[in-house]
Amino acid sequence: MSTNSYYGQDGHGPFELCDIGTLELEDGGALPGCQLAVATHGTLNAAKDNAILVPTWYSGTSKIMEQVYIGNGRALDPAKYFIIVVNQIGNGLSTSPHNAGAGQGGPDFPKVRIGDDVRAQHRLLTEKFGLESLALVVGGSMGAQQTYEWAVRYPDFVRRAAAIAGTARNTEHDFLFADTLIEAITSDPGFRAGRYATSADVAAGLKRHARLWTVMGWSTDFFRADRHKALGFDSVQSFVDTFMTGYFAPMDPNNLIAMAWKWQRGDVSRHAGGDLAAALGRIRAKTYVMPISHDMFFPPGDCEAEQRLIRGSEFRPLKSIAGHLGLFGVDPELLAQLDAHLSELLATPVG
Amino acid sequence: MSTNSYYGQDGHGPFELCDIGTLELEDGGALPGCQLAVATHGTLNAAKDNAILVPTWYSGTSKIMEQVYIGNGRALDPAKYFIIVVNQIGNGLSTSPHNAGAGQGGPDFPKVRIGDDVRAQHRLLTEKFGLESLALVVGGSMGAQQTYEWAVRYPDFVRRAAAIAGTARNTEHDFLFADTLIEAITSDPGFRAGRYATSADVAAGLKRHARLWTVMGWSTDFFRADRHKALGFDSVQSFVDTFMTGYFAPMDPNNLIAMAWKWQRGDVSRHAGGDLAAALGRIRAKTYVMPISHDMFFPPGDCEAEQRLIRGSEFRPLKSIAGHLGLFGVDPELLAQLDAHLSELLATPVG
Repeated sequence: MSTNSYYGQDGHGPFELCDIGTLELEDGGALPGCQLAVATHGTLNAAKDNAILVPTWYSGTSKIMEQVYIGNGRALDPAKYFIIVVNQIGNGLSTSPHNAGAGQGGPDFPKVRIGDDVRAQHRLLTEKFGLESLALVVGGSMGAQQTYEWAVRYPDFVRRAAAIAGTARNTEHDFLFADTLIEAITSDPGFRAGRYATSADVAAGLKRHARLWTVMGWSTDFFRADRHKALGFDSVQSFVDTFMTGYFAPMDPNNLIAMAWKWQRGDVSRHAGGDLAAALGRIRAKTYVMPISHDMFFPPGDCEAEQRLIRGSEFRPLKSIAGHLGLFGVDPELLAQLDAHLSELLATPVG
Repeated sequence: MSTNSYYGQDGHGPFELCDIGTLELEDGGALPGCQLAVATHGTLNAAKDNAILVPTWYSGTSKIMEQVYIGNGRALDPAKYFIIVVNQIGNGLSTSPHNAGAGQGGPDFPKVRIGDDVRAQHRLLTEKFGLESLALVVGGSMGAQQTYEWAVRYPDFVRRAAAIAGTARNTEHDFLFADTLIEAITSDPGFRAGRYATSADVAAGLKRHARLWTVMGWSTDFFRADRHKALGFDSVQSFVDTFMTGYFAPMDPNNLIAMAWKWQRGDVSRHAGGDLAAALGRIRAKTYVMPISHDMFFPPGDCEAEQRLIRGSEFRPLKSIAGHLGLFGVDPELLAQLDAHLSELLATPVG
């Protein structure tokens, strides 16, 4: 176990660490004393029917969900809903490579799948909060992967689902993109097969990883429209060197790789012997499928193909040249569209 | 100077090596005894008005232009036209890092720009072939960069121009993508700052480079439609490991880096103090701008923005989910569209 001050209450709190006991893992092994970092907003009502679950994406924590998506007057309004943001395993706040117990630290961290996260979250929600259903599960990117997993695995628990900029079964193209992210890091001699001393030892790899995110994370239209300049950077190069590299530089490389491995293998069809249509056919939640128009690796086409397999679902693309990383909240129009869709979804009666 | 059997007449011939003398370079220095590898098809007519110039793209040689684009009954028909395919400097057939003379080999190869290639080609065409004009310059990707450079630099020489899947001024996004390609190679410890013994020493870097090309070179729609399976690969992974990795593996890393450096800096606005509109305003050729619909790094939007700055030009996008590497000729429908446009362009009377 190493320390990394990036993952603390100062930068990412307030959050509560909840011990959910031993989590058996789909790929073998277990996380004893698995801890989920949880941030809640609002109050659970007496009927316990106003709970919303928000899982997190690659590299993100509960903090960005709080800052960008939750607030009074927003769709995710703490005045109306009890909003539970659960940090995914491996993200640095919950049990992760950099903070894991004896024998499981760093590169020895066991393989964790999306399904493991969702079972861990289910245990948390039922045992700690006494929930029997969720008014909504909503997440972006890997949060969308968890959202789909929730809706397929626990169809009676999830009343509404909103999958933003993510898929139920990861594509091979997307798998390959994540491979390039992993390799950008692991090819750094300073990575030392995961046994580096600090993230700074892997700075070159983390910078390459940031560059790849810049190429694929936004869109060609975003840069053509000089949106990076509107954000305060005079060139794409300074945007990469300052914003993108600065964002990833303090993160723990093994944490990122654990999440990337999980992301690559997100696949609800595992519940139906590889039959995606059968798996998605289990969903009973009222589901909105919400890709971002200019997303280069969870493109609308991939998402719409899945949407057509979900009974009663609706295709609600978000128009934004920000691309995938519009998730960061840099495009107010994307957030306005999202809020409108989520408000409509939350107002939709469900059985 | 090292040897690399990949770049021979066996795989890429027939081509002729033409010595154009000393080529002074825009960024300083010179290539003494600069050799251009040239392949011609058809016969120059007496009026010398049926010549077509075809420059090459990143990693490509005259061979793929011959195999995919030139033929009887095609738009580029050797029965009608005298078609001159000139291999770009650095591509391994013309003067390149791997075959350069004393003091210029490998990482000591001087910086070569698109403008250097075009001046070299102009010297070749005027001195060797006695040409005073070209019926058409047509190229894809870096070939499009050279096409634009020709039309801006020698406006009276170029009567028609067709820029496929490329831009007149490279975008910052595209620059960054090329950066990731370069870094994929240079980050390999076997690269040894360009002083490796053989390409095999840099196999890991070349494989990462191939993966990046797979992520950005085709399109998400291409893989969703299982086009890689239609090409004979049962998964994206085998497509990468066999086809894409196999394609790049024998190439010389310093050659690739010389081309990537050149690609990054393609910019006709250098002729007008950075004013792109003024530079493109110099073009007198009848110009077709032909991006490929699903191109992820020379996207139609970037190309159309430039097309609007070229007097009398036409925007003729090619619809293909193959994306940028549709240039390889894997999509017959793309080739059919291209031939139709080029035939129309060639049939258009020009002043």
